[in-house]
Amino acid sequence: MAKKDFTDDLRPHPDADGAKKLASERSRSSIDTDELANHVFGSAYLERQQRVLTALEPEKIFSKANQANLSRPDRYKLGLARGKRMRQLMDKHGWDEADILMAEYLIDDLQPYHLHLSLFNSAMREQCSDDQRAYWTPKIESWEIIGAYAQTELGHGSNVRGLECQATWDQKTKEFVIHSPTLTASKWWNGTLGRTATHAVVVAQLMLPHGPSGKLVSYGPRPFIVQVRDKKTHQPPESIAVGDIGPKYGYAPMDNAYCLFDHHRVPHSALLSRYASVDPDTGAYTKPTNPASVYGSLTRGRSVIVMNARLVLARAVTVAIRYLAIRRQFRDRDDANPEGPECAVLDYSTVQIRVLPLLAATFALHYSGEAMRELYERTRSTNALDGDQAQLAELHSTSAGLKSLATDLAANGIETCRRAMGGHGFGGGTGLIQPNADYLSKPTVEGDNWMITQQAARYLLNRVEDVKKSPAGESRSRTDDNLRDYHARASTPPKSRQLSDETIAAAFEWRVSFFAFEAHRARYIQKKSWNSMLIDLYKLSRAYAQSMLVGNFYLAMRRSTLSCSTTTEVLGDLYRLFALNTMDAEAREFQKSGAVAAEVLDTLPEQVLHLMQKVRPHVVKLVDSFALPDFMLDSALGRYDGRVYEDLFNRAHRLNPLNRLTFNPDYRSDEIVMGAKDGADMLAKL
Amino acid sequence: MAKKDFTDDLRPHPDADGAKKLASERSRSSIDTDELANHVFGSAYLERQQRVLTALEPEKIFSKANQANLSRPDRYKLGLARGKRMRQLMDKHGWDEADILMAEYLIDDLQPYHLHLSLFNSAMREQCSDDQRAYWTPKIESWEIIGAYAQTELGHGSNVRGLECQATWDQKTKEFVIHSPTLTASKWWNGTLGRTATHAVVVAQLMLPHGPSGKLVSYGPRPFIVQVRDKKTHQPPESIAVGDIGPKYGYAPMDNAYCLFDHHRVPHSALLSRYASVDPDTGAYTKPTNPASVYGSLTRGRSVIVMNARLVLARAVTVAIRYLAIRRQFRDRDDANPEGPECAVLDYSTVQIRVLPLLAATFALHYSGEAMRELYERTRSTNALDGDQAQLAELHSTSAGLKSLATDLAANGIETCRRAMGGHGFGGGTGLIQPNADYLSKPTVEGDNWMITQQAARYLLNRVEDVKKSPAGESRSRTDDNLRDYHARASTPPKSRQLSDETIAAAFEWRVSFFAFEAHRARYIQKKSWNSMLIDLYKLSRAYAQSMLVGNFYLAMRRSTLSCSTTTEVLGDLYRLFALNTMDAEAREFQKSGAVAAEVLDTLPEQVLHLMQKVRPHVVKLVDSFALPDFMLDSALGRYDGRVYEDLFNRAHRLNPLNRLTFNPDYRSDEIVMGAKDGADMLAKL
Repeated sequence: MAKKDFTDDLRPHPDADGAKKLASERSRSSIDTDELANHVFGSAYLERQQRVLTALEPEKIFSKANQANLSRPDRYKLGLARGKRMRQLMDKHGWDEADILMAEYLIDDLQPYHLHLSLFNSAMREQCSDDQRAYWTPKIESWEIIGAYAQTELGHGSNVRGLECQATWDQKTKEFVIHSPTLTASKWWNGTLGRTATHAVVVAQLMLPHGPSGKLVSYGPRPFIVQVRDKKTHQPPESIAVGDIGPKYGYAPMDNAYCLFDHHRVPHSALLSRYASVDPDTGAYTKPTNPASVYGSLTRGRSVIVMNARLVLARAVTVAIRYLAIRRQFRDRDDANPEGPECAVLDYSTVQIRVLPLLAATFALHYSGEAMRELYERTRSTNALDGDQAQLAELHSTSAGLKSLATDLAANGIETCRRAMGGHGFGGGTGLIQPNADYLSKPTVEGDNWMITQQAARYLLNRVEDVKKSPAGESRSRTDDNLRDYHARASTPPKSRQLSDETIAAAFEWRVSFFAFEAHRARYIQKKSWNSMLIDLYKLSRAYAQSMLVGNFYLAMRRSTLSCSTTTEVLGDLYRLFALNTMDAEAREFQKSGAVAAEVLDTLPEQVLHLMQKVRPHVVKLVDSFALPDFMLDSALGRYDGRVYEDLFNRAHRLNPLNRLTFNPDYRSDEIVMGAKDGADMLAKL
Repeated sequence: MAKKDFTDDLRPHPDADGAKKLASERSRSSIDTDELANHVFGSAYLERQQRVLTALEPEKIFSKANQANLSRPDRYKLGLARGKRMRQLMDKHGWDEADILMAEYLIDDLQPYHLHLSLFNSAMREQCSDDQRAYWTPKIESWEIIGAYAQTELGHGSNVRGLECQATWDQKTKEFVIHSPTLTASKWWNGTLGRTATHAVVVAQLMLPHGPSGKLVSYGPRPFIVQVRDKKTHQPPESIAVGDIGPKYGYAPMDNAYCLFDHHRVPHSALLSRYASVDPDTGAYTKPTNPASVYGSLTRGRSVIVMNARLVLARAVTVAIRYLAIRRQFRDRDDANPEGPECAVLDYSTVQIRVLPLLAATFALHYSGEAMRELYERTRSTNALDGDQAQLAELHSTSAGLKSLATDLAANGIETCRRAMGGHGFGGGTGLIQPNADYLSKPTVEGDNWMITQQAARYLLNRVEDVKKSPAGESRSRTDDNLRDYHARASTPPKSRQLSDETIAAAFEWRVSFFAFEAHRARYIQKKSWNSMLIDLYKLSRAYAQSMLVGNFYLAMRRSTLSCSTTTEVLGDLYRLFALNTMDAEAREFQKSGAVAAEVLDTLPEQVLHLMQKVRPHVVKLVDSFALPDFMLDSALGRYDGRVYEDLFNRAHRLNPLNRLTFNPDYRSDEIVMGAKDGADMLAKL
């Protein structure tokens, strides 16, 4: 790219030799990274990652080198080209669904066909009648049609019952008339629909005549399959206005849509009728029967969110730990030798306290995601135990709180890691700019992180009510046990003076019970308004989710069968680090609830410091065991070989397209690029 | 732009009429927004804002409509074009420095000449000898040369003494040889230098022969003026490699640089020699004399940071409050009428608890920034009081903690506001994407927010040492008073049972003293290592900075002379909201220190809830009084007139350039844009 010049022979200062620093970090820990990687991901996952990676790496279209320099329209075009190539590779290599997910993860740039493969596909699978399924499935699988899922509207998000878009049955023509009565009825945010899709599942209020007056009323939001663009010209009909909503925080290649309907007519068959239907001859409505095991699929979805949060956090932590183990800054103030080498930034306690608890949180998220997945899989088997079913029902409600906590931990964790990296944390060399921007959607989508905590809290209030009504009733879950136990001995709180692995987990449970009973009293006895309690309910849900993370981590440690004793020991330290650091942050709740003695809470900062020192020698090996490929990381700071400074310089000096242009800074000149007289061109771009 | 179509006649649902909603919000508060705006900004500022705005608005080059769609190279080009136009407007309107700052603020897109106007200009003003100043000033002012400031390096940020770049005196030729011995010696991050500048102040280790051996040693980092590009061809000489470092989180139009020197020779006059010089005949070195009143300029710089943090936070809060007052979602769970209108999102306590304390924080930052500025101005006068001078010395040390807290509050506050806005918070309609990305640099630049807290904490430890040594010594500052008072009655902590405005402020001070003495004991008596104390020192600094914000807010309330009694009352509520919400978040420290009784701390959530309800009717008027122009906000969600949905739709349907293209989604086709056969073109862009 750049000509040969004097910089070609320059190397980093010997004190900043990243390759040597990481080699030395790796040599001082006896963690068996292969075993740990297998423990976390399983060999099938790691094999898949390697196989898909091998297929992607040689393809230039997936190169990330210039991605951040492109315009938004080019980002979409690139996304489309990548999506096409991915489909070709699917066919070539016979990839299954898990392979495609893996490819999307490694490419790390959402392609515009994504919603066709995911939400549109699953909605059609779930909502179509058998006849509809037989008709549409081949077209969906061959990509003859490209589909999207259009539910949310400009004025309506979480409250699905408030959707404005209408589908009115016309008995004469036996058609539905899809219509957007207002601007706020415009479909909004719907991925893949903006520029790519030919079809969409449109969720609209089903309007049918009601009662003797025949007045049109809504029978609730129902799904309709609607063709939005001509397959040949790719233009929408005049009765549909559809387009991309424009740049947003992340997901530049994705065409999130607006879409309005002007009395747009679709045939009777457009209503997806597995669960509810309209008789074409009489216009009579058949109510939906609830799909079975909705608990299961929702819980599975939530476990995926938790597992993704874990991967995102692992990524940020990997980049931060590798870079901060290399980066040197200032000498230790207590160092007697004023000429000694500068400290590794990762050795400062103020850096450790930000990054190492997040490393521990990555494992905490992992074990809870895994526990959810296992429970879900056990309950799918025909001879699932009753206890598992009850546990699943509980998890269905309480996992709302876990979604909230997990996505907050990951979203906030990326930014915490970024800031811990100081100046270079603001640069493109982190490889975190895009994943950060993308991930910022997660705390609000699929249930706003504050709003949905009501679900978990409501469940707990109901359980407390049951326990109070029949204290001797049967326990059906761990939470039941805890609430009954608390009810029986609320007057003698444990005030733990000794924090063993077991009493730590028990303290988290006691705190939940205490605040669940407090909230119950506020609502059922003091009759407080729901709105005035929302903040307390949020805290209750968070306490519960923290207790889940700690509890599942604890159980996983007890069951651990790792052969490497160092790994076992370090994971135990990570358990204690995650739990005690969380306890320290919430110390007043632990004190108030009587879960832990106040003097013991005072010792937490010291204990956390000590645990961080114990974990410190192993952190590079720990992030190595996340096995995140350099191709995916695309990070100068976080690359496996530690060549941080060489890579940063290479990106700047040899790859940056801005450096191929020479500019004219004379303010009196209409020239921007030297010799181009292009000042007016800039105006045209606005 | 777009053709006329059926969407032209659509309006938002009557329940989503933003103009009506905001009108109703404004009608229910009697706050005098003009008076409050004057109180916060002063009439000169508001007049300046209006005058500069009037000059900028008609200029198409400052239109923000398509900015987010441009490529990085185009963002730089646009920045250069804007910078040129700004200079032309400077000349046309005779703008002074404050006018230019105002223009930059309103344009809200850092132009590449920025460092020429700021850091380069001030470094030259401060470091040049009189002769040098006479030579360079006209060239700087006429933009005959464009300058940058090159201090930080690839391997070296905060630790200036660790810089690697060398300037070696060659007695024979009477030149300095500027050289980068390694890759990590490359200058890095230096704004305006990447593509724009012709000159740079380069900070390099001054290498002179030392002792009888004549061995070269460093006399410390000194500034040199170096021409980096030819004024005509704008090409660097072969002995300099310079360019832009590539895309980063924010500041797309700014050309942050890398720059290396290969034994590049500059004349003796290149050393900026106001404070230190090398005799050209003997090579003898004259040590720097410390520039006077460095306290003052540093304190002034910190007050600017605090005032900017206030403006950035005001911006996020303005957007969030206007939008959330309009947005409706779900009905109140306790509402008896199941068909009633949906709630304004801003009426949910879980939304208020995120946004309203930030509204209060905006004022808290304001009053502290103002207090700093006033103190700085008082100490500049010739008959400044001793007390003021002592206070300034104290502020110089402790303002490090305030910089840390203020930039954290603002950076985190933007994201908190964004998430509170739910789905649309992730969209470009917030107008916050770019200010958010830009501002994320602030917690790490100008002193990393964790690192610099040591400065404030060290000051406090020294004060405690003095107080312990001579408890009856003379107090020279408010902090001295507090520490002495604490020392005298540490055994009888106040444990306040009643939280008046005054005791609230006193509780914050007591907490600081308690933890300052604790830290002093750990360091001086228990002899703990500095590194093991860093986290506690960070907390101490934060406690001190919070106490400053609360204390200055309290004093401002006491002195308030506003004629509108509602405003006075609401500001008082905001003071209590900020202080008590902060106290609640740090409740355990207040409990442990004995500043406030535990039972009283238990009442804080209830008090905060009550204060938010009191403030709620006034919040739209409060943000109106920040007087942020729509031109600057560039926000569909936060526009003054409340036409949120109309604006969001207009940006999507009529302005988004992606919608002018039709795409071919057939994965077997090499066509991306319909009819273009442009699949291969995408590859070429990578």
